[in-house]
Amino acid sequence: MPGIVTITTDFGDIYPGIMKGVIASVSSHIRTVDITNSIPQGDISQGAFILQYASASFPKGTVHLAVVDPGVGSGRRALVILGEKYWFVGPDNGLLLPAARAQGQFRAYEITDLKFFEKSVSPVFHGRDVFAPAAAMVAAGDSVPGLEEIFDPVDLDFGVPVLEEDGIHGQVIFVDPFGNVITNIGGTALGGLLFLGDTVEINGTAATYVTTYHDGGAGDLLLLTGSHGMVEIAINGDRASEYTGLGRGDEVVISVRERQSDGR
Amino acid sequence: MPGIVTITTDFGDIYPGIMKGVIASVSSHIRTVDITNSIPQGDISQGAFILQYASASFPKGTVHLAVVDPGVGSGRRALVILGEKYWFVGPDNGLLLPAARAQGQFRAYEITDLKFFEKSVSPVFHGRDVFAPAAAMVAAGDSVPGLEEIFDPVDLDFGVPVLEEDGIHGQVIFVDPFGNVITNIGGTALGGLLFLGDTVEINGTAATYVTTYHDGGAGDLLLLTGSHGMVEIAINGDRASEYTGLGRGDEVVISVRERQSDGR
Amino acid sequence: MPGIVTITTDFGDIYPGIMKGVIASVSSHIRTVDITNSIPQGDISQGAFILQYASASFPKGTVHLAVVDPGVGSGRRALVILGEKYWFVGPDNGLLLPAARAQGQFRAYEITDLKFFEKSVSPVFHGRDVFAPAAAMVAAGDSVPGLEEIFDPVDLDFGVPVLEEDGIHGQVIFVDPFGNVITNIGGTALGGLLFLGDTVEINGTAATYVTTYHDGGAGDLLLLTGSHGMVEIAINGDRASEYTGLGRGDEVVISVRERQSDGR
Repeated sequence: MPGIVTITTDFGDIYPGIMKGVIASVSSHIRTVDITNSIPQGDISQGAFILQYASASFPKGTVHLAVVDPGVGSGRRALVILGEKYWFVGPDNGLLLPAARAQGQFRAYEITDLKFFEKSVSPVFHGRDVFAPAAAMVAAGDSVPGLEEIFDPVDLDFGVPVLEEDGIHGQVIFVDPFGNVITNIGGTALGGLLFLGDTVEINGTAATYVTTYHDGGAGDLLLLTGSHGMVEIAINGDRASEYTGLGRGDEVVISVRERQSDGR
Repeated sequence: MPGIVTITTDFGDIYPGIMKGVIASVSSHIRTVDITNSIPQGDISQGAFILQYASASFPKGTVHLAVVDPGVGSGRRALVILGEKYWFVGPDNGLLLPAARAQGQFRAYEITDLKFFEKSVSPVFHGRDVFAPAAAMVAAGDSVPGLEEIFDPVDLDFGVPVLEEDGIHGQVIFVDPFGNVITNIGGTALGGLLFLGDTVEINGTAATYVTTYHDGGAGDLLLLTGSHGMVEIAINGDRASEYTGLGRGDEVVISVRERQSDGR
Repeated sequence: MPGIVTITTDFGDIYPGIMKGVIASVSSHIRTVDITNSIPQGDISQGAFILQYASASFPKGTVHLAVVDPGVGSGRRALVILGEKYWFVGPDNGLLLPAARAQGQFRAYEITDLKFFEKSVSPVFHGRDVFAPAAAMVAAGDSVPGLEEIFDPVDLDFGVPVLEEDGIHGQVIFVDPFGNVITNIGGTALGGLLFLGDTVEINGTAATYVTTYHDGGAGDLLLLTGSHGMVEIAINGDRASEYTGLGRGDEVVISVRERQSDGR
């Protein structure tokens, strides 16, 4: 069975190719797939969200290698996580936890001997010398030497939306390549409060709660549940991020302005 | 036989990786190759030109998955096209037709049941839930359930150049990463009218008709037949798009100013 | 044995995908890996450095296809190089030489018949019609017809740092995606002159000689040996290229300002 290793980093260019060389050196049968190498540099939470979202489309047994690692060379631990469906390999800074947790139970292991593959480990490129070989060995069915289970991996979450008098308060967790603004508000939760066609307010601006981009006219501000299951702010044929000025981390308040007349 | 699925989209980042996850879920033996994920968003005609140009370099049997799909979630049909050399999978908006036609005869099939793979199809990401699994099933040699032949797929073309008194009138269909300006004027057609070394006018500016970039001095405006077989405006070592101000969709008028003296 | 072909170009988008189509046409078992397609256009020396650095992480037998080829269509020769560990395929303009030399002995062969694969070779896209099929044939274990050994391939180097009274004079050879400034000064050479913790001057600005980004406080200018073995100028959590204004080709003078008190 040829294993798959996915790659999620903030490396931009060149460094991902080097990691693929290392992976091929472990086994030429491993296939690599880029999820993205354009996470904003050092933005662990953004990387964690993309990893959680994108990893779920891969087949069981996939090894997800993720490196957003501003702490490289400091004392932070290196992790291999075995989940119900996937393996995850990367730094112990919270990057892997949301994706692992989304799959169910998991166990976390520290790579206690960083020199298990290269005798000389660059203190500034663990992606090449530690994480890529570890991911490749897992994908090849080999065990990584010196793994020790830990019970306190660094965790993170994307914040919890709060229902207040003036509406649901959430946060922007991602602006996608189309300028759609994705929030940390679950689509199922909001779906229970709204009817399709309702007029809502997003930070004071009117928008329509719809199913798909085409339910609004050109230029209309829309609220819908995106392909990730989260509430998304969009404009049919335009960039909602530019129209609203909303960016990563900004607060979003959503309230009902006008109930659609025929209810449901 | 491990099939190949090529990918041509306006998705930018992340979403192509997710489609690759779905494809691997259908069969881990399928190989994916990105043609591009940087088609200008919603520019179906640009996507169609790139697909026609780039798809032709792949081996017989390749499945070309293309998604430039501003109409996702509207009523537009989802297509599987069987051509003489390739399969094409994508939305029924003209994107696939020029590439399919360039290979000869073809048959077009509508995917009548969008839930053939996922029970829940996101109305905003058919790339993941409809097109990627359909392309993967074709590449794996499986049949996609619910295909029905149609005879009126949406078509498009890149415009027909017109010969008028003041020269050949065409259009810019693509500015490549080097700033070369590619027109919808066929190189063979123009080659019949010009001799190498002729001085031509491009929208009033003098240029030389040559074979390769090095036939002109640094900074000279050149007219030649590009690797796609279309007439291309270029500058040796510089960006013709910036020098001429020509961009996608602009009109180009080419006329002969001075016949090369020795003719041929 | 499924061969690997790596790709290093200044092509940006689309053209690399076309080359992969050609490679798959030669053999569908060859795997392709992008090192980068974002070499600054026509910057042969930059391409040569990236190729030397990144190629070394791949397994023995890898075929490295590199095309930064401002001379395409001129008389420059097309090369296949057989080194101790790798094959290299690309234009004879110096691009391949540093990487080949870094692996030890090598032999260089000219592709004397450019039409060995395509009967019609585009004078502007040898990547597609000459280099990609040659690399694929090598990776497939086939011989490229018409190879003739040559003994004068075009060479280049990255300049030699010079020790003068006011310090070591070197050059910037690469600014990486994190804004780290990589010089042509070898880390081993500098390591012999400095102790960790020494304060140095980089073009007159104080910096600390360290092992990893975390050895400095936020915003501190640092000097260290990067993962490529070269001396690198960095800032923990920020872009050294923007802070220092240093870019590709700029001169760097490094001198010791203050010896770390406890020496070593």
